[in-house]
Amino acid sequence: MQLHGSPLSCSMATRIALLEAGAPFEYVEVDAPTKRTRDGADYREIHPLGLVPALRTDDGQLITENAAVLQYIADALPAAGLAPPAGSRERVRLQQWLSFIGTELHKGVYAPLLGSEVPDAVRSWALEKGLSRFDYLAHHLDGREFLLDRFSVADAYLVTVLTWSVATPIDLKKWPSLVAYLQRLQARPSVAAALHAERKLYGEELARHGRPVPAFLRPREAPAS
Amino acid sequence: MQLHGSPLSCSMATRIALLEAGAPFEYVEVDAPTKRTRDGADYREIHPLGLVPALRTDDGQLITENAAVLQYIADALPAAGLAPPAGSRERVRLQQWLSFIGTELHKGVYAPLLGSEVPDAVRSWALEKGLSRFDYLAHHLDGREFLLDRFSVADAYLVTVLTWSVATPIDLKKWPSLVAYLQRLQARPSVAAALHAERKLYGEELARHGRPVPAFLRPREAPAS
Ligand SMILES: N[C@@H](CCC(=O)N[C@@H](CS)C(=O)NCC(=O)O)C(=O)O
Ligand SMILES: N[C@@H](CCC(=O)N[C@@H](CS)C(=O)NCC(=O)O)C(=O)O
Repeated sequence: MQLHGSPLSCSMATRIALLEAGAPFEYVEVDAPTKRTRDGADYREIHPLGLVPALRTDDGQLITENAAVLQYIADALPAAGLAPPAGSRERVRLQQWLSFIGTELHKGVYAPLLGSEVPDAVRSWALEKGLSRFDYLAHHLDGREFLLDRFSVADAYLVTVLTWSVATPIDLKKWPSLVAYLQRLQARPSVAAALHAERKLYGEELARHGRPVPAFLRPREAPAS
Repeated sequence: MQLHGSPLSCSMATRIALLEAGAPFEYVEVDAPTKRTRDGADYREIHPLGLVPALRTDDGQLITENAAVLQYIADALPAAGLAPPAGSRERVRLQQWLSFIGTELHKGVYAPLLGSEVPDAVRSWALEKGLSRFDYLAHHLDGREFLLDRFSVADAYLVTVLTWSVATPIDLKKWPSLVAYLQRLQARPSVAAALHAERKLYGEELARHGRPVPAFLRPREAPAS
């Protein structure tokens, strides 16, 4: 399989899922600012919207949209148990969380906050609308380890978007169950490995474009003693 | 089944799916401005985010999020053929379109354009980002009757959001395949029946709140001769 992605973007969720399953894959890195793959090809000729992730399956089909790509991987690699069985009631719950993350968090809150040419009015609008979504999520995760009863591709997607909070004005500390979830999930081997790989690639992307490395990518300083 | 919805909102997609399947259901109307059901109950006690649709299944579970509710209905009423089989490759395509509609169209374009207290900067931002999504969709629908090979819950969702265009600055005429799709789908009996029922309820909602009936709800005038 070939995963088209950009470092630290939502395509990291698919990387986490593939690492969980121990499946071999090729990462085709899309340089976010130029929409070129590292070999210089125009990514819009692969996916006209220029959005990642896009997964090329072994039989050559292209699948886009996080919710579809993640469920495809869970079903193609069933031994990893990344989703409840297709057609089950629990799968509906998974779809509910994937949709909530994709629509309410990713597009509703984070995309406006992280976009590079977004007017300030858009940012405050998104931030204000976002609060109730975090309340709702924090309430669900209170006392739970994962979104469902065990790790699933919805957690791969959620840990990815929550990781973006450091680059936004969202202060997760207001929701202790979200902070705990994020720390727990970021320590999970697949997630830690994905973060390690993508932070490095993201640092390289910034360097290629002569942009400074933001604080959240720099090695953490020791707390003042 | 009990469908919590607001007239002409995205919950209309679920009504269309239920009508397609000929399944009996109770419509619990949520008054959009007050978030009260018609019997005066606070809808936020049913769904804390106050979002429709929310489907109460016959065994009492509450399912939210369009992509999940629509797939649940397709799987619960399989004779209607509203989705490719769970676990199939074609189901992944359905999930891709449901996600595209939910994230890129509904949340990315229409929600900012239709919200009542949205700053102008948000509207122009959404409108500008939207164009490439309509190009992409129009290209896919060129020469096709439905999003997949036959009618599916993704069409129920798509016809619902495209119907909102008349209340936005989006001029669908730029994309003839979208205009043709919308006309074709709006003429489909399930869609026509849903539109008829929900236009009436929406008119009543406006009247309850003393708001004028917008042009697109008024009977169409004969073209000037
Ligand atoms: N609806 C898409 C959204 C994907 C998306 O927003 N991808 C972002 C990265 S997180 C992207 O490619 N942005 C580049 C752009 O907007 O041009 C999905 O759920 O997969
Ligand atoms: N992510 C939700 C979004 C649902 C949604 O946006 N519903 C709208 C109607 S189309 C709503 O209930 N809006 C009321 C509000 O925002 O308070 C889904 O896909 O079901």
